[in-house]
Amino acid sequence: MTDHARLYKERPAHARRSPYLLMAIACPKLLLRFLGLPRSLPSLDRQPLPCLLPARSSPIPVLRAVPRTAKARTLSAVKDDQSLSSIITELEQEQEEDETAAGEDVTRRLPERWREIHGRDDWAGLLDPMDPLLRSELIRYGEFAQACYDSFDYDPFSRCCGSCKYNRRRFFSSLGMEGTGYEVTRYLYATSNINLPNFFTKSRAGAKIWSQRANWMGYVAVSDDETTARLGRRDIVVAWRGTVTRLEWIADLMDFLRPVSSVGIPCPDPSVKVESGFAELYTDKDPTCRFCKYSAREQLLTEVRKLVELHSKAGEEVSISVTGHSLGSALAMLSAYDIAEMGLNVGEGGDRVATTVFSFSGPRVGNGHFKERFEGLGIKAIRVVNVHDTVPKVPGILFNERVPAFLRRLAEALPWSYSHVGVELPLDHRRSPFLKETVDPSCFHNLEAHLHLLDGFHGKGHRFVLASGRDPALVNKACDFLKEHHMVPPFWRQDENKGMTRAHDGRWVQSDRQEVDDHPEDTHHHLRRLGLANDDHH
Amino acid sequence: MTDHARLYKERPAHARRSPYLLMAIACPKLLLRFLGLPRSLPSLDRQPLPCLLPARSSPIPVLRAVPRTAKARTLSAVKDDQSLSSIITELEQEQEEDETAAGEDVTRRLPERWREIHGRDDWAGLLDPMDPLLRSELIRYGEFAQACYDSFDYDPFSRCCGSCKYNRRRFFSSLGMEGTGYEVTRYLYATSNINLPNFFTKSRAGAKIWSQRANWMGYVAVSDDETTARLGRRDIVVAWRGTVTRLEWIADLMDFLRPVSSVGIPCPDPSVKVESGFAELYTDKDPTCRFCKYSAREQLLTEVRKLVELHSKAGEEVSISVTGHSLGSALAMLSAYDIAEMGLNVGEGGDRVATTVFSFSGPRVGNGHFKERFEGLGIKAIRVVNVHDTVPKVPGILFNERVPAFLRRLAEALPWSYSHVGVELPLDHRRSPFLKETVDPSCFHNLEAHLHLLDGFHGKGHRFVLASGRDPALVNKACDFLKEHHMVPPFWRQDENKGMTRAHDGRWVQSDRQEVDDHPEDTHHHLRRLGLANDDHH
Repeated sequence: MTDHARLYKERPAHARRSPYLLMAIACPKLLLRFLGLPRSLPSLDRQPLPCLLPARSSPIPVLRAVPRTAKARTLSAVKDDQSLSSIITELEQEQEEDETAAGEDVTRRLPERWREIHGRDDWAGLLDPMDPLLRSELIRYGEFAQACYDSFDYDPFSRCCGSCKYNRRRFFSSLGMEGTGYEVTRYLYATSNINLPNFFTKSRAGAKIWSQRANWMGYVAVSDDETTARLGRRDIVVAWRGTVTRLEWIADLMDFLRPVSSVGIPCPDPSVKVESGFAELYTDKDPTCRFCKYSAREQLLTEVRKLVELHSKAGEEVSISVTGHSLGSALAMLSAYDIAEMGLNVGEGGDRVATTVFSFSGPRVGNGHFKERFEGLGIKAIRVVNVHDTVPKVPGILFNERVPAFLRRLAEALPWSYSHVGVELPLDHRRSPFLKETVDPSCFHNLEAHLHLLDGFHGKGHRFVLASGRDPALVNKACDFLKEHHMVPPFWRQDENKGMTRAHDGRWVQSDRQEVDDHPEDTHHHLRRLGLANDDHH
Repeated sequence: MTDHARLYKERPAHARRSPYLLMAIACPKLLLRFLGLPRSLPSLDRQPLPCLLPARSSPIPVLRAVPRTAKARTLSAVKDDQSLSSIITELEQEQEEDETAAGEDVTRRLPERWREIHGRDDWAGLLDPMDPLLRSELIRYGEFAQACYDSFDYDPFSRCCGSCKYNRRRFFSSLGMEGTGYEVTRYLYATSNINLPNFFTKSRAGAKIWSQRANWMGYVAVSDDETTARLGRRDIVVAWRGTVTRLEWIADLMDFLRPVSSVGIPCPDPSVKVESGFAELYTDKDPTCRFCKYSAREQLLTEVRKLVELHSKAGEEVSISVTGHSLGSALAMLSAYDIAEMGLNVGEGGDRVATTVFSFSGPRVGNGHFKERFEGLGIKAIRVVNVHDTVPKVPGILFNERVPAFLRRLAEALPWSYSHVGVELPLDHRRSPFLKETVDPSCFHNLEAHLHLLDGFHGKGHRFVLASGRDPALVNKACDFLKEHHMVPPFWRQDENKGMTRAHDGRWVQSDRQEVDDHPEDTHHHLRRLGLANDDHH
């Protein structure tokens, strides 16, 4: 039995609870289908899931991590009246005492260990006990995904609602992430004209908004020279935005699988299928819109092709790291698979470019054939989940990879038999002494909470101990999950005066936004090279 | 008939609606009492008033006014797709065209007109048509009251919750009100150990908070030399804080009048009575607390005495301007009355110091005898109200100054027969083309909305025309009242990251607050001079 399988088998009882019970709450459409009822029952269909509604629908705020050292810090029992500062001070004292035992900075070993960290051996032996370098790298990639939330304009009263608040060239510095050592080379957009209405965010202003039809979906970034040296290879990061607290989009999933080949991904096997909502989000475009006249897929593929070519031509080793949380994880899985299916994960010399998905609380994306094809192409995926989170249990709560094999084979013909891919790293928010009891599913699903749980995870049965100085206060950025005595305001990430500033004439106006980036001139050229161009474009 | 009486008589029909109907909603306790039912019915008593609950209970944000010229600007019909900026630009163009007709800056005439503006003639002839200088001065005093909201720390996760966010010496500059020309000489505090639990705001942190028992209640400020010259006298401003959106405190009013003499105000007539909740708030103290070891009354009286003495000794003419909104208006009425009853409104040479209350959406404070005594002492009060606001209708919805005289005489013996004092200036939010239809009572009650309505008010039957460049965007600071197409976010006044800032070590912490002011050393000395000291103090 692999380490992962053992970990999985030994997960806590509540994580093994029958998924069927959850179905009625989380996926009424599926239940109806199962019971043979029509899906259009007005009382259930199209309604947001009450159990998944956020506690607040306030704008979903922003980000930032404390610089980390990967040295383990021991946490004494947290006293109830202890402030975060005093806890962390205590941690640091203990760390200093431990200094001799703590050993070197594990990240120094990245050049020799990165292939292992990126799943070369399917993370065997790295998850229990938790490998410190893997933990630190998972958090680092998680923060790339978190940056998508922290920079997104959620305010329906903003004319730039649905776009990224910051200019591409100053993306990381605007977020206080100057130390990242990556440069954002492209922003990714998708059209909102698809069947996920609860996912998209739109300005209430009728006219003069940045775009009527697009939403900012993430970015492509590449490591700078210094970071490349530190990492042992040129790293291309693709980060996809999901949703922090608004989980209603799950209700919009059509629970319907379609062949990946039907959306243009060149897979010869029509039985390889993915959820149609994700496929549409990834491939739809709108020729009338400056930002989504190319699909997210076309934007991504041209950019990855360009970067891989550029850097492998220079003789560098390259890695592709795709990350996303929630719906962003589905796009990460789908796009990593597409990159491999398109053969873009091959350098100039014909050598394979390691392609890895760092997924956080992601839903299932495709069927069993998709899983086989995905893994067969050599893409690696590690899925960090909180066992109490419902999202990784959908779609496919009824038929999934946990159903006995003979039943699954039977179900494979059905359009709603889903399968997770890759290796799961299950965490449990009840292990963290910083988090309070709550029934709010948007807390269980929160990305910052996952990063906090990662930081304290040392393996099954190990004590929850913060491995770095990563600030637990970050958990409450966009939710209400920390125990009250820590005195961190819930949902604290917000702009001063909702972005209203006082102009020189004394009036209060929306701050001017930098010109929003659309697409580089050479996109069409690269599309043509990929065989994806048709003359409708430009 | 005075102008005011005529205005009042001609108020719109909805403002004349029977107050009895409103009683059931706004004052269930009174209704119960009226029907002879016990007040402790669990289903009604002690419950917040559903109709008065705010749409959101989010922190109640901050402030600022655009510099005003008092020149009248004509407003063309507002088109539905017009932004605030374009409307105001249009106003300015029209103003320029009008320049020759617009005449001089009316505030230049303050030195000769201020006594009239402060109610010497009970505002006869100034309200309809609206006198431009009075309008501008009402807005100016309203902004002093608004500053109390904009500077108050409402965040229960702040250790300074319930205090003023800014240091006294930088109060106006922290609010962007550098141009005010006043200096805050003292902060006023009250103890929260009284019968208005829904009024007070308290930190959730158990320990290490600024005070367990106090709430910041407002300030005393005095005009600087330059402003004094411009105003034609040294102006002492007393501003009392109320509540912007949390109207539940109204439910806590005991609807019970008590003699002012019973709380130490030296009125020889025991039939002069005020609402006991206001009297307690004004006079209660807590010897164990640094901030409320003196009552708000003691803090105020010593400060006013000191300032009047100082400036009248220097041969200056002095005015006392007391302002407040909502519950703050009740304190303004009570404290102005107290100042006169204590004889503090007399200068060194024995000349009367003009004492005026600028009240905004204030509830009734006392009985008919209180009204007579108040007005008999020569204090002037102007009450700006929105005819749709419920707060000025309580307490005393049943028996008040509008009941026929013979009935009122009968009712005067009852403990719940209330009377407004001074002169009312009724406004109607439906007259403003900027405001949307809503049923939210916290919008009707909002102070910024009142200031906006004042700015557009030119008299009964006159068109709503903004008289100055005062930014309508300010209305939405702490409510959701502007029409959506203006694209001003509702509740936009908020601190960046709820006051969390990133420390040099990368941790997110609550911003350090300046040392909170308590009371000057000489308070006890001045109390003794006022005959209010007893040896329990200090």
